Amino acid sequence: MSFDLVADSYGKSAIRLLRVTRSGQQHDVKDISVDIQFEGDFDAVHTKGDNSKVLPTDTMKNTVYVFAAQHAIEEIEDFGARLVAHFLTNNEQVTAVKVRISEHRWSRISAEGKPHPTAFLASSGERRIATLIGTREQTTVSAGIDGLLILRTAGSAFDGYIKDAYTTLPETRDRIFATTLKADWDYHGEQPSFGLCWRTVREALLETFANHPSESVQHTLHAMAEAALESCAQLGEIRLSMPNKHHLIFNLSRFGMENQNEVFIPTDEPYGLIQATLRRT
Amino acid sequence: MSFDLVADSYGKSAIRLLRVTRSGQQHDVKDISVDIQFEGDFDAVHTKGDNSKVLPTDTMKNTVYVFAAQHAIEEIEDFGARLVAHFLTNNEQVTAVKVRISEHRWSRISAEGKPHPTAFLASSGERRIATLIGTREQTTVSAGIDGLLILRTAGSAFDGYIKDAYTTLPETRDRIFATTLKADWDYHGEQPSFGLCWRTVREALLETFANHPSESVQHTLHAMAEAALESCAQLGEIRLSMPNKHHLIFNLSRFGMENQNEVFIPTDEPYGLIQATLRRT
Amino acid sequence: MSFDLVADSYGKSAIRLLRVTRSGQQHDVKDISVDIQFEGDFDAVHTKGDNSKVLPTDTMKNTVYVFAAQHAIEEIEDFGARLVAHFLTNNEQVTAVKVRISEHRWSRISAEGKPHPTAFLASSGERRIATLIGTREQTTVSAGIDGLLILRTAGSAFDGYIKDAYTTLPETRDRIFATTLKADWDYHGEQPSFGLCWRTVREALLETFANHPSESVQHTLHAMAEAALESCAQLGEIRLSMPNKHHLIFNLSRFGMENQNEVFIPTDEPYGLIQATLRRT
Amino acid sequence: MSFDLVADSYGKSAIRLLRVTRSGQQHDVKDISVDIQFEGDFDAVHTKGDNSKVLPTDTMKNTVYVFAAQHAIEEIEDFGARLVAHFLTNNEQVTAVKVRISEHRWSRISAEGKPHPTAFLASSGERRIATLIGTREQTTVSAGIDGLLILRTAGSAFDGYIKDAYTTLPETRDRIFATTLKADWDYHGEQPSFGLCWRTVREALLETFANHPSESVQHTLHAMAEAALESCAQLGEIRLSMPNKHHLIFNLSRFGMENQNEVFIPTDEPYGLIQATLRRT
Repeated sequence: MSFDLVADSYGKSAIRLLRVTRSGQQHDVKDISVDIQFEGDFDAVHTKGDNSKVLPTDTMKNTVYVFAAQHAIEEIEDFGARLVAHFLTNNEQVTAVKVRISEHRWSRISAEGKPHPTAFLASSGERRIATLIGTREQTTVSAGIDGLLILRTAGSAFDGYIKDAYTTLPETRDRIFATTLKADWDYHGEQPSFGLCWRTVREALLETFANHPSESVQHTLHAMAEAALESCAQLGEIRLSMPNKHHLIFNLSRFGMENQNEVFIPTDEPYGLIQATLRRT
Repeated sequence: MSFDLVADSYGKSAIRLLRVTRSGQQHDVKDISVDIQFEGDFDAVHTKGDNSKVLPTDTMKNTVYVFAAQHAIEEIEDFGARLVAHFLTNNEQVTAVKVRISEHRWSRISAEGKPHPTAFLASSGERRIATLIGTREQTTVSAGIDGLLILRTAGSAFDGYIKDAYTTLPETRDRIFATTLKADWDYHGEQPSFGLCWRTVREALLETFANHPSESVQHTLHAMAEAALESCAQLGEIRLSMPNKHHLIFNLSRFGMENQNEVFIPTDEPYGLIQATLRRT
Repeated sequence: MSFDLVADSYGKSAIRLLRVTRSGQQHDVKDISVDIQFEGDFDAVHTKGDNSKVLPTDTMKNTVYVFAAQHAIEEIEDFGARLVAHFLTNNEQVTAVKVRISEHRWSRISAEGKPHPTAFLASSGERRIATLIGTREQTTVSAGIDGLLILRTAGSAFDGYIKDAYTTLPETRDRIFATTLKADWDYHGEQPSFGLCWRTVREALLETFANHPSESVQHTLHAMAEAALESCAQLGEIRLSMPNKHHLIFNLSRFGMENQNEVFIPTDEPYGLIQATLRRT
Repeated sequence: MSFDLVADSYGKSAIRLLRVTRSGQQHDVKDISVDIQFEGDFDAVHTKGDNSKVLPTDTMKNTVYVFAAQHAIEEIEDFGARLVAHFLTNNEQVTAVKVRISEHRWSRISAEGKPHPTAFLASSGERRIATLIGTREQTTVSAGIDGLLILRTAGSAFDGYIKDAYTTLPETRDRIFATTLKADWDYHGEQPSFGLCWRTVREALLETFANHPSESVQHTLHAMAEAALESCAQLGEIRLSMPNKHHLIFNLSRFGMENQNEVFIPTDEPYGLIQATLRRT
């Protein structure tokens, strides 16, 4: 019997880092988690236990903290690019470096009506994410949003679908539409404006979610993806993933009452899962 | 051998409910999770398998949804009180009813610069909580905050402590102070203003956390509790629980650099845990 | 306005530790998480920011690891008692020390039909727990089980209960009974046999869960508590907490079929919660 | 501007199901969670809000329960194949159906020294998984293991690696090696023996993990993959993912002691992550 090692990678995940930047009395915080993966000439590590070409994942971790000390972290895409370049330059055995960064955003605590200079409140579970993949030829950058929990109470329908022997779902022109949005997109062209573009795309996604006359999750997801691509010319492709977090209408008829779409049971399981990719042509 | 049944209770937990209230084009949502526990004359259930005095937990659950349909939910304390009264009135075998409500708050999505009337964004992991305990004599109300993740980057010290053979922690006049605050307080007096008081106490806790010159978590916790009691005369007692979410300073000296309190490793485990109760005298 | 500090405590939680003990080629592992809390003369810490009586939680943590190095950990109750004694002896400002230990058990991997001497497989989510509370007068020991997920498919009924306007639950003589058991008990008398007693009580709880003709969760919980107290004379009191993890029968009648108690929907929310305390008289 | 819908899919996730099968006094349980995804001719759903070709995810869910009622679930691969075939046959607009099943295994409670016929104890967090992807041309089957937490205390080294300016990790010939194994493999050939093969591969993975003289996670992962492919001829390819769950040696030298590889700090973050794919040639 013989076997081929057809793919392999290794690295460090969940390198958590808080960077404080001080401008006089005003402090800023950047709270990130970094994942790094290497691909390259690592066959002998696997087959012979020869570690001579292995940069330990512990060293990857140290490098992240040292780089964060050397430069304030502005946009996570830029910080990621600096790491990718460093690892490629200093490790000729490596053919590809993948760096993924997830940013947990903090707001300022409001004190005496003003944003406090040095005290912060965690924002929601939403994360800003970025993924950089660097090879000897090029580095690609994608960015996005993860864990953005949103809900609308109007303008969402679902009817006109197939009925078969196992159908029990009633058609509706008015239902709760809730999801935990995950979006990620690829940048194309030179020097994207990472921060501006991220905020613009996020706003486009939220406004379309809020306003689109929805015939289904797919229908609104598609409109959201279009709005995102329209909002920022630097996006080449966007991928959206939207679980349908079902809110079941509580059956009041058993108690001689009618549920006027007012009382719902939020559920976690099972959930619908709708995904699509749109690309600029 | 003989044994006494010295305590027992039963009920339904995690009854999740979304209530939509419509005022013309404007919708509001209330997203809560309800826990109910009964105490009473239930010895025969335990010892004889006699269920004749058992109100099933499934019925408790139905009751919650029916009550939510009958009345819009304004303050969770009022909704809880209605449930407590109902169960006591209709179940003479019951001596005490405990209702705990946890509210997950939603903000409005901002669209075209305005808060959207029917689309919402989950706020942070913070919850507003209320606990009502009703007996034949009285109903007590406590309320609070759970899961409020906060962090400050200035004005926090920890030194002057005991050193023994196992001490390695360096003293500091400048450290990150981060916690996930849990606060709950008892109301006394007639007709507390639940909503107003909750917002006032929350603001007092946050401002004190932000501004207090901190010699330790205990020191600031105590100041926060005092500020809370001062902010609302209807509070009789407050209990605070503050895990110390350590942010370790990354050791840069190994790389010939100095960490000027800029680069930290956020950690989840282990964590300090500081708790105290203050009572108005 | 004046306020009293009516209670306060502090300490370190989630101190994780793996202890390896080697007997020739045979290794054993003890995988625990330790929580420590101190009560005592700490008013000045809170009110004046005076840390002179504070043993830092970081030092508590170091002490745990040093003690684990000095002695192999046999029973977690003994390890906890050693910590309690140390902290009381060396900290006169302390009036009470609470140590809670949670043990994650590992089984040996089976290789060539034999238990491997140095390789292990995590057991289920079940934990063995112990809590010691030491004061200047005495140390009390409680122990228990947490997270023991069990299920039975026969001999479980629920009927004969109260029906009111909100009842929809059908009575049944045959349902799934599933729970995640939490049990903890107090030892009384001199020198309890911690390991033996823990195993005996666990076996009594499991066998009674499996065999008891159940009229309700309460009914079986009570029988389990009795069996536990009977199984080990060193138990003075036992507390059981049993969430009722509902398995809903899937309604097949809509498809012209009958569900012969074969197809169920496991659910996490909402859940019943049944609790009781039995004491030896 | 114009955009292409380059990929899309939808379905229901986390359909939880407990199937009880009775053979006289002996009961068996199958506890699974099913995810379904469809691809096909769904452009009009996205672009026009036309649901006429949409089989609702609620119907997918009902179908799973009905099929479970019609047939006892033996191997999850067979149950998945039945679902795939049904959905392809009855939905001509669908080009691909993906069914993923995750099985939570239960052991029998031991009572009076024998396995109890109707009472069960949850096994560890380990899951048996299967993924079926069916198109009009073929159905592929992969299977595997997820969440298998394992640890070894001997025979694991890591040295001889690259040192650079950011290296601080000491070399070692003796460390703790712990991981949560995820493995999945593709079957090739006709009529694989799903149950037998799963057990054989699992045993090969565990034994190799336990016995392999390890120079790195990569080195042992590769040996485990080889052993798996050797153990069952019906495997065409295997993919392993092994987080390196670091156990840090506690530094006792600060206390005048030496840590003889006995006291470790288990950590969750950061973690190494090692992945590879081996294919039979």
